[in-house]
Formats: sequence, C-alpha cells, structure tokens
Amino acid sequence: MARGMNHVYLVGALARDPELRYTPSGVPVFEATIAGEDHVVGNDGRERKLPWYHRVSILGKPAEWISERNLKAGDVVMVEGSLDYSSWEDAQSGQKRSQVRVKAQRIEQIAPSAENVQDAGGGIRLGGGWNVVMVLGNLTRDPELRYTPGGDAVLGVGLAVNEQWRDKTGNQQEKTHWIDVTLWRELAEAAANLKKGDPLLVTGRLMNEAWTDREGNKRNSTKVEATKVEALTRGAGTGMS
Amino acid sequence: MARGMNHVYLVGALARDPELRYTPSGVPVFEATIAGEDHVVGNDGRERKLPWYHRVSILGKPAEWISERNLKAGDVVMVEGSLDYSSWEDAQSGQKRSQVRVKAQRIEQIAPSAENVQDAGGGIRLGGGWNVVMVLGNLTRDPELRYTPGGDAVLGVGLAVNEQWRDKTGNQQEKTHWIDVTLWRELAEAAANLKKGDPLLVTGRLMNEAWTDREGNKRNSTKVEATKVEALTRGAGTGMS
Repeated sequence: MARGMNHVYLVGALARDPELRYTPSGVPVFEATIAGEDHVVGNDGRERKLPWYHRVSILGKPAEWISERNLKAGDVVMVEGSLDYSSWEDAQSGQKRSQVRVKAQRIEQIAPSAENVQDAGGGIRLGGGWNVVMVLGNLTRDPELRYTPGGDAVLGVGLAVNEQWRDKTGNQQEKTHWIDVTLWRELAEAAANLKKGDPLLVTGRLMNEAWTDREGNKRNSTKVEATKVEALTRGAGTGMS
Repeated sequence: MARGMNHVYLVGALARDPELRYTPSGVPVFEATIAGEDHVVGNDGRERKLPWYHRVSILGKPAEWISERNLKAGDVVMVEGSLDYSSWEDAQSGQKRSQVRVKAQRIEQIAPSAENVQDAGGGIRLGGGWNVVMVLGNLTRDPELRYTPGGDAVLGVGLAVNEQWRDKTGNQQEKTHWIDVTLWRELAEAAANLKKGDPLLVTGRLMNEAWTDREGNKRNSTKVEATKVEALTRGAGTGMS
C-alpha cells in the first residue's frame, strides 16, 4: 500500500462557540465547527454557493493554547490538519457506524471578516473561505461509473489512506483512514478504468452529504469532492519515511 | 514572529534527466527540474498558459529511493515539499545572491501522461499539472501599492517564513525563509494597508520571474503569485509546536 498523504486546509468562521473538554485520561481536546462556503462555477456558467460545516478537533497542549484565546461563534480561523477516520458500534442498534472528521495540527485566528453569514440553523458561516484537501491513498474497490438523470458522469471512489508513525517507545504504528471521494464529469470518466489497489492522488474540497438510512434516520457524511486527480504508477510510494 | 507554515505541491514532468549527487560529507541529493503549465483565466475571460520550471531537490535516503526508479526526462512526478531559501556571495562580483527552491519531502511517479509538451529550450514540460503553495509568514516591510501601465493594481510583499525544528541533540534550531509574493488586482488592493510584521496566510502558485540586473545579466527568481490571502490577527501563531 502506498504511503498515504493526508492534508486539509480550512479557513472559515466558528459556527458556534467552541468547547474545551478533557478525555478520561486527562488529554485536553478543543472542538469546533468551522463553516464556510465554496463558490463553484457550474457547467451552465452560473456560480453556486456550497456551504460546508466541518467538525474540527485539536488535542494536547495546542488545545489549551487555542482555548486561551477565548474564541467565540463568528470568529474566523484557519485550520491545518488531516482527515481522521473513526468507527464504532451504535449502542442502540448494534450497527457499525463511522465518521470522517478533521484532526487539526494547528488553528490560528484570522483577522475579523465582514463576510459572515447567519444561517437558518442559528449558526454562522463565512461567506467564502478556504477548503482544500490533498490526499493520496489506494482504491478500496473497482470504481463504477454512473450517470445522473441529467446525464452527468459521477464516480464514487473509496480511498484507503495510510498513516504511519512511531510511538513514544519507538515502535512503528499504523492506521488506515477510509475516505470517500466523489469525481464528477470529465474526472469521473478519466478515472473509470482504475482498479482496486491503484494509488490515487486527489485534491479537492471537503463537503457534507446528508442522506437517510434504511431506518429513515437523517445522517451526515463527510466526503471529498475531487477537483483534480492523478493516478500514481503501481508500486509507487512504498518507501518508508 | 508567527510560527511559519510552508507547503508546496507540484505535479509536472521532468524537464531533463534528473541527477543523483553526493555532498562532500556523503549525503545523497537527488536534483530535478519539474515543469508544467498553469492555465489561468484572465480579466478578459481568455485562458493563458503560464509555463513553470522549478528546481526540486530531495536529500538523504529518499534521494536514493527515488534515484533507483531510473526516472527520465518526460516522466511525470508529484512533489510534496517546502520553499527553501538560500543565500551566498557571488565569487566574481562579491555581491550577495539568493534563491528560493523547492526542498522535497517526497517525490512519487505519476502514471504516464499524453500531455507532455516539447519546449523551445529542448526540455519537456507537462501541459498542465498541479502547482499549489501554502505559506504563512510575517511581512518584512510595509507593502507599496503600484499600478501597471494597463491600470492593474499590483502589490509585492516580502514574507519571512519561520522554520523551527529540533536537531539530533534535541536543541531548538531556527531558519527563516525569505519569500517574495505578488498580489494582483483585488487581492493587492485589499492587502495594501498591511504593515511590516503582520502575519499573512497565502495560497498561490510558484512562478518563475526573469529579470535583468544592473550589470545587464539575465537572472531568474522564484516567487509566489497569490490566489488567496488572509491576514492573521496580530500575535497569532506565536505558540510553539
């Protein structure tokens, strides 16, 4: 499996007042929802505004430093981080659940903006912002090209993004982040012949997708919408850092 | 001074065969010129192709790994790295010289592309590619807004981008990368009131600029052309990692 690459850069407003909490073992965790809008020009030449709300957390000492700044809803911040996959079993239904959130390495306050937008849910988002994802991983399955009723090609791709690090005792640790990526139109058609296991480099934006599960519950996922992709040669990226 | 942020992502073709050499102390250095084109839509709605050629080097074990792949001119690669400033005294004139190059943390081979372009200088570039820079630094001077003869606002900004790391003996080391950033039109006007010392977050593309020095010699510089900027609040980013 290719050594993964996993970077996220966001600039947005705090949708609500952020929170500092502590894990049972005493690790500080700063949690915030960062919100902005991507302004995307569609096939018809019209600009659409795509709001996004992403859960961001930062752990350890940086959590306490950023907490000391007393940030409030509406304050604008930049986030440098990575996509973080986690899964668990739902206590009620026993079903497996999973989510992708942003684990920040760094959060900094941006000068105040006049572009904040009050949203329908009582929150705030920045009427603009930055939303850039760079990931490199291996395809978890052969992708299947589909078409919308309007005739747009769309390809849903699963990426296994590998994270490797050394723990305090010097042992090699490994975790896989399972990231869903959506490719549209030319990108979808160009990538349709990729196979399970192929390494793929993706840049795009992080988006929310709302859907309804089989029990009729409203659910949310975080996916990457690709703006550019490049297939790596097979066997690339197997070197260790 | 704000803790710097310094990331570069390139996808382009090898303009020439790359070289592996060794420093006098035996450190392997893999050196390549990566070349591509940015396709930028101007104010007049027309797309311009902006070729770029960037010198990239990678040191140590990864230099030997990538060298073993026997890459040749025309092969397409991705580079993850950072902007690296160096300065020296010119042996002949005694003048101070400096350059900004890309120090790679990682180079991977991309699947072959049909988009390669033979250039007038006998090299090769990718007729497309990726060229993304993310930097955070402090302004080295008060910026001065100028206008081109055609009436376009332009602002040249110097950024001091701070790098901190611990050496093998655990001592804190520090280096400053002096990076030139060009802002055009609305971006230039919006940033004209910034002052020396202000922390600025920049995303953009890495470009070559050719110029003639006072002695009439042709020279080249590497600069960042900003596509988005955000001013951080004063005093942000002073926390240590």
